[in-house]
Parts: sequence; structure tokens; C-alpha cells
Amino acid sequence: MIAECILIIGVGLIGGSLARALRESNSVGTIVGYDIDKSGLQEAQRLGVIDTGSSNIAEVVKDADIVVLATPLSAVDALFIEMSGTLCDKAVITDVGSVKAPVVALARHHLGNLFPRFVAGHPITGREKNGVLASSAQLFSGHKTILTPVAETDPEALNLITKMWQAVGASVTQLDIADHDAILAITSHLPHIIAYSLVDCLSAMEGKHNIFDYAAGGFSDFTRIASSQPRMWHDICIANSEQILAAINQFNHHLDNLRQAIEHNDSEKLMCIFEQVKISRDDFVNQNARKMRTTY
Amino acid sequence: MIAECILIIGVGLIGGSLARALRESNSVGTIVGYDIDKSGLQEAQRLGVIDTGSSNIAEVVKDADIVVLATPLSAVDALFIEMSGTLCDKAVITDVGSVKAPVVALARHHLGNLFPRFVAGHPITGREKNGVLASSAQLFSGHKTILTPVAETDPEALNLITKMWQAVGASVTQLDIADHDAILAITSHLPHIIAYSLVDCLSAMEGKHNIFDYAAGGFSDFTRIASSQPRMWHDICIANSEQILAAINQFNHHLDNLRQAIEHNDSEKLMCIFEQVKISRDDFVNQNARKMRTTY
Repeated sequence: MIAECILIIGVGLIGGSLARALRESNSVGTIVGYDIDKSGLQEAQRLGVIDTGSSNIAEVVKDADIVVLATPLSAVDALFIEMSGTLCDKAVITDVGSVKAPVVALARHHLGNLFPRFVAGHPITGREKNGVLASSAQLFSGHKTILTPVAETDPEALNLITKMWQAVGASVTQLDIADHDAILAITSHLPHIIAYSLVDCLSAMEGKHNIFDYAAGGFSDFTRIASSQPRMWHDICIANSEQILAAINQFNHHLDNLRQAIEHNDSEKLMCIFEQVKISRDDFVNQNARKMRTTY
Repeated sequence: MIAECILIIGVGLIGGSLARALRESNSVGTIVGYDIDKSGLQEAQRLGVIDTGSSNIAEVVKDADIVVLATPLSAVDALFIEMSGTLCDKAVITDVGSVKAPVVALARHHLGNLFPRFVAGHPITGREKNGVLASSAQLFSGHKTILTPVAETDPEALNLITKMWQAVGASVTQLDIADHDAILAITSHLPHIIAYSLVDCLSAMEGKHNIFDYAAGGFSDFTRIASSQPRMWHDICIANSEQILAAINQFNHHLDNLRQAIEHNDSEKLMCIFEQVKISRDDFVNQNARKMRTTY
């Protein structure tokens, strides 16, 4: 047992999955949920994902040993303000957001002397479906969770959040805040933006023919991530704009390189790019397969 | 039974799958394979995918009722030249390539008075794995095959190739050559080029951190298609360059639109793009789900 009482703020896909996984691993005593969506909260309670639910944050925050922020990034500022007066001194606060710099800045600004008890985190997982109904106790199993502690972070708090993610099967690793935000801009935010742009492009070209009718299975896989929650991706684009713009520039450079090879009928360059990329991608898949074998 | 003897030129993923599916549906008598890769041809015979194999095209082409070209596009020119003298008058010739204009032009140039017996075709399916070992009798089932007949095309030949694809479970549809090449540039060639560029971009950014380590499951799906055969995609880029360049320009326009919204912190525009795209993509998925229910 790592904590008597955990408060999960935002009982959606990530918050709900964490609750389910912590319960399955018998890691916590009571699981309390908070959500502005009252019907979602009732659903979570009905499903047994949380023990009790509340839409009054002051009421539930005071008894929590761990507080997990699992909301869109844009909700974090107001939540820090609401909870800062009522958090108990022993509480450890963490989050699950895809961008770390702005969350850590807000925590530093609002949490005062409790800031060392804040451990910024990011489980590298997800689904294109949202809400507590899509949540799963297995969501984090075999996936990385990145923590981005700072100089002030209390080692005891860091240790507790590390244990929490390990309890749900995640492999915990640490990164600098700036490294996290730059790496995720490339590996996650950029692919999502590209998927959105591709679907946007196809939609705009619907005309005489229903163009989506001719899309093969690959297109469906490719654009699966374009069905993710619009609000979440809006918030990520605003919060990590600088790193995302840099990633788009990098991608444009590589796409333009390929475009030029096509424009100039440059056979040698085309073969060289396609062969090199196939090697990189196959390496990535093999590496992941090895990791999965090690994890289980 | 639609034909006594079928010759499949190129017994790889598509050729091998067509052979398997035709055999399973008892649609043809003898299945003969031709391939420049002798060990692949032996493997196909050992697996029972083909009845006999040959690496001498003149020897096998003369008895074939249907000749299917299932090779990379760059091999088609030489094959038309090799077979044109020995094809029997009743033969119907077809292909499976992703680009139709250059293949039809080559057929017109080389097949002489047999050109009306050529029916250009394209099954909209595939896998990221290549070769006869990856072939499957179910590859075409529930997928579209597009035929692009021209004014000269013999209705009897068109009917035979339509029946062949229907026999393996494909839904056969017809398009103008130019429409086919423009639509496929957007729905298939562009997504592949984007996937290649994205993996290329990530590979180039490997540095202090092994960047692929932080890529989530979505990235793996997204770039699955970047493991496709380099030679095939090289040939497609060369053969459909004009339409592909137009598709890249369209995509760049939409990506730049999103990039500008991020650059200007334009919340309203970001939400509008993300919500609209989610609707389009969800429509595509629902439409596909309905189609699958109708097909089976």
C-alpha cells in the first residue's frame, strides 16, 4: 500500500485508468474522484472505478495523500489556485500532462511551500477514445512514465510517485523539463499535428468522388490519432508551441527533401531515403519488441 | 471457373495472395508463376501457392488465358516487350499497380492489336510485409479493386477481370485513369510520403537521448507504412510524380494553416480545425464499419 487516500482530479481515460490500475494492484486505500462533469463522475462511481466522487474540491483535497491532476492542461491553473489553501502538508501532488514546462511554472507560482511536494509526470500512453468508459487497468503496463523533478523536488515525494507508476506496470524514467517538452514535440505532438493536417487535407478535396472511399486500411491506422480529444490537443499546441513549431520546421525540411527528389526524378536519392527510413523504422519496431519481452 | 490457366508475373505479396485466393475460390485451373527471384518462386511452389514456376517468360506466357502483372512498376516496360510476341490472341492481360497512366501508355505502345485485351487494375490493399511468405488468400476480401478501362478496352476482357477480382472477395469499381492517379496520390501516396518523412525526421534528431524510446504506440501505427518496400515506393514516386507533387502542395497548405494557428496562439482556429477533423475522421471510420458489415 503506497497511500491511504488518493484524489484523482479528472476521471477520464487517464485518471480512470490510473484508478482502475491502482485498485487492481491493491496500492491505495480509498480512491476519491473529482470532475466538473457530474454524470461522468457518477458513471465512474457506478463502475467501481472510484470509491466516492465529489464536485467540491475543497471538500476532498484535504484528506488526500496523493493528488493526481488528470485534466486538460488549460484546467490546471484554476485547480492549483483552488486546492492550494486546503492541501495537507503531507500531500504529494502530481500530474499527467503532455507538456511539462508550463505546469511546473504554475505549480511553483501557486503551491508556495508545498512546491517541493509537486512531481510533474507524463505517462506515455493513450487511446483515441476518451472518458471513463474507455479507461483500462492495463493502459500503463509496459509503457514509459516520464517524471521531470526539479532541484527543489522532495526526494520522498519523487519516490512515492515513482512507486505509484511502477505499481501500475509503468517503466519510470526521469528527464529534464526542456528535454521532455522537445522530445515529446517530435515523437507525439508532431505526429498528431500531421495526422490532423492530413485528414483536413483529404476532407477539403472531397468532390466528384467520395475520396475517403478509396482510402486503404493504412490510412485508417495513420489517422487513428486524429480522433483524439480536440480540447486536449488544443491545449498541448498552446502550451508547447515553441517546441512544436521547431518540430514542424524540422519535418518540413525532410518532407521538402523528398518532394525535391520527386520533382527532379532523382532515383538514387529516392531509393536512398526510402531504404534508410525502412531501416530506422524496422529498428524501432524490433527495439520495441525486445523491450516488451523484457517488461513482461 | 473463370479461366483454365492463369500466369502470375511477380509472385510476391500481391501476386501470391491473388494466387492463394483464386485457388481457394476454385476460380482457375492451373496457376503458373513467373519471377526473376528463383528462390521466391521455389518457395511459392513449395507452399502450393502456384502449380508450376518458370523464369522463362516466353515458355509460360503462350498458354495463359489471363496474365497478371504483379511486379514493381519499373519492371512493366521490359515485361510487355518480352511477352508481346508470344501472348495468345485470347489472352487477357491485367496489372495491379498503384499508378495507372504510365502502365496504360506502355500497354498501348507495346501490345499492338492486343491492347484492347489489357485491363488496368489496382486492388486497394496491402501490408507492410513483402514477399510470398506474407501473402494471404484474404488480402482482397472486403477491399476495393479499381479498374481503369479505356475506350478501346474489350468488354469481354473487362468482364473477365471484374469476375476475377469479385471471385477473391473484392468490390470492383471503375475510374478514369486520371481520377485514379489523382485520388490515389492523396489517399495512399501522400500518407506514405508523410510517414517516410516523419521517420526520416525522427532519425535525424537522434542525439543525447534515444528519441525512438519515447515514441508511444501511436507512432508505431502511424509509421507502419514506412516499412513498405522501398523499390515499390520509388517507382510510384517516379510514375505519379505530378499528382504526388500536387498532393504534397495541398498537404503543405493545410499543415501551414495549423502551424500559423499555433504560431499566433489562435485558440479559436485550433479548436475549429481539431473539431472539424475529428468529425471527418470519425465519419470515415463509421462509414468503413458500415461497409464491412455490408460486405460480409
